[in-house]
Amino acid sequence: MVKKELPLAEFLKNAKGSILIVTHENPDGDALGSGLALYKFLKKKGKDVFIASKDGVPHFLDFLPGADEVLTLPRDEFYDVGIVVDSSGFYRAGAPVKVGKKVRIDHHVGGEFYGRYDLVDPSAPATAALVYELIKSWDRDALDPEIATCLYTGLATDTGFFRYSNTDEKTFELARELVSQGADPYYVYTMFSERESLNKMKLISKVLETLSLHEGGQVAGITVLKRFLDETGASYEDTEGLVNYPRSIEGVKVAYALIEKPEEGVWKVSLRAKGDVNVGRIAERLGGGGHKYASGAKIKASSKEEALNKLLSAVREELKPQKTAV
Amino acid sequence: MVKKELPLAEFLKNAKGSILIVTHENPDGDALGSGLALYKFLKKKGKDVFIASKDGVPHFLDFLPGADEVLTLPRDEFYDVGIVVDSSGFYRAGAPVKVGKKVRIDHHVGGEFYGRYDLVDPSAPATAALVYELIKSWDRDALDPEIATCLYTGLATDTGFFRYSNTDEKTFELARELVSQGADPYYVYTMFSERESLNKMKLISKVLETLSLHEGGQVAGITVLKRFLDETGASYEDTEGLVNYPRSIEGVKVAYALIEKPEEGVWKVSLRAKGDVNVGRIAERLGGGGHKYASGAKIKASSKEEALNKLLSAVREELKPQKTAV
Repeated sequence: MVKKELPLAEFLKNAKGSILIVTHENPDGDALGSGLALYKFLKKKGKDVFIASKDGVPHFLDFLPGADEVLTLPRDEFYDVGIVVDSSGFYRAGAPVKVGKKVRIDHHVGGEFYGRYDLVDPSAPATAALVYELIKSWDRDALDPEIATCLYTGLATDTGFFRYSNTDEKTFELARELVSQGADPYYVYTMFSERESLNKMKLISKVLETLSLHEGGQVAGITVLKRFLDETGASYEDTEGLVNYPRSIEGVKVAYALIEKPEEGVWKVSLRAKGDVNVGRIAERLGGGGHKYASGAKIKASSKEEALNKLLSAVREELKPQKTAV
Repeated sequence: MVKKELPLAEFLKNAKGSILIVTHENPDGDALGSGLALYKFLKKKGKDVFIASKDGVPHFLDFLPGADEVLTLPRDEFYDVGIVVDSSGFYRAGAPVKVGKKVRIDHHVGGEFYGRYDLVDPSAPATAALVYELIKSWDRDALDPEIATCLYTGLATDTGFFRYSNTDEKTFELARELVSQGADPYYVYTMFSERESLNKMKLISKVLETLSLHEGGQVAGITVLKRFLDETGASYEDTEGLVNYPRSIEGVKVAYALIEKPEEGVWKVSLRAKGDVNVGRIAERLGGGGHKYASGAKIKASSKEEALNKLLSAVREELKPQKTAV
């Protein structure tokens, strides 16, 4: 199961000086889970290591071991080694520091590459799986309950708790291994998903009233007006995941969440695919990006109607019967 | 990993005549998943086997291999062997037939026992795990993608897709094995959870407006009035799982869903615990039953206020600081 030592393991083993781990903006469970697992492990190995997230640690991840050691701003101006985890490059990491040698550990497609020590594998279900490989290739006995909990959180949340299409045999094998090392599935689920606010429930109620179907039921979506947040006391963070409601409806191929962001003068759109439609291409038409099943864009529009029209034309373009290439 | 042959395997191997598999009323994913896995397996072994569910197969389970072979009423008046799966006894199975020899395969506590061929283990995460053991002890090569899909559905749905406290190392090991035999996690999730109706979304919206907190936020619940179903076109089946919304709120220890059932002259209550409260005991006080984390009861009351008062007194009784036993 464990292959020969990874080049990155050898590199980090020999690395002298300070190490900074950074992740992407608005970090999710895999970003902070894999970042903190690596941080805890490198500390154990006696390294002078730090971890930073410019947006801090969101409430639903504050249970992660080491969460209180995450810096909002890097402490120093220079680090000998900079490791970006779960992000396509330092440009998304929002870290303005200078770094001697950059390394990337990630499962996203594309982005920046920094050389032979990168550990980038888009076939991995989560960046946590790559950090696990790194740790195992360096020291197969180094896993402990704290590191296992961080890695499990990354794996579980990035696979939608083992429900998305990136869940395979190896995903379950890794989950089994992490549980055997002390990760507690129910604890992670409860801390991550069951500390919601009453305000968020009120927001869901309001938002579901806007649910509408288009294109004979192939497209479904919800709209979040800025005043919904004001009226319910919910936060912008609470809009995360609302796109899953229209997605869950039978027959829907494309689901959207259209979110008013008046302070930026745009409407943010999140897209999800169920089945064969490629929502990455829809987002590209709108100047955004992403992949086949999940994507996003920002639409400039002066009204909800205008934003929705722009969105639906881009969707229709993609739903058109494709001509077969000759 | 595979132990010596189970007594039940030996018994079924030698069984002559007809076999009827039954499960509990309003069957869930584990009831039909484990029932159909056993049905498919016994057919493969050349047995004269049938499967019946008095409430038929609900929409969210009609994708299960063999779902169209499930009988609503048993065809005959007598079967040589009757196997009840995922139910505490034939009395819950609603099967009025005569049976030569009864057997029970189940992971629920208590209930009826029929003798040494029973396979009852409350420590199993799902009845599907017990059917898996039975099959493996009989013929370790008998798993195929259809049987694996049925068993996976039972395991995944009864653990809340690997989120509840019955999820452990062995759960993930079994999930891995079933995926390696052809179960597709994303397919099962999509078919089970992502074929909702627009009406159900409207129901959720209405129901969340009723969300209220009690006892300083330790108790949260929702109310489903009969007219909500009429107004949204949702069905009684759509109320399943709504209790998870109040449960997901931070600080809540007891969550309830109070559902008006005027045709029975009662209010049905579903209870869920988060943390240390025992909602089984609350349900018992109300004349119902269940276990520590999930329970239910029916309350006789002429108004919502009366039903809620009865419910909340039973909850308060349980939340009282307990005297330590001497």
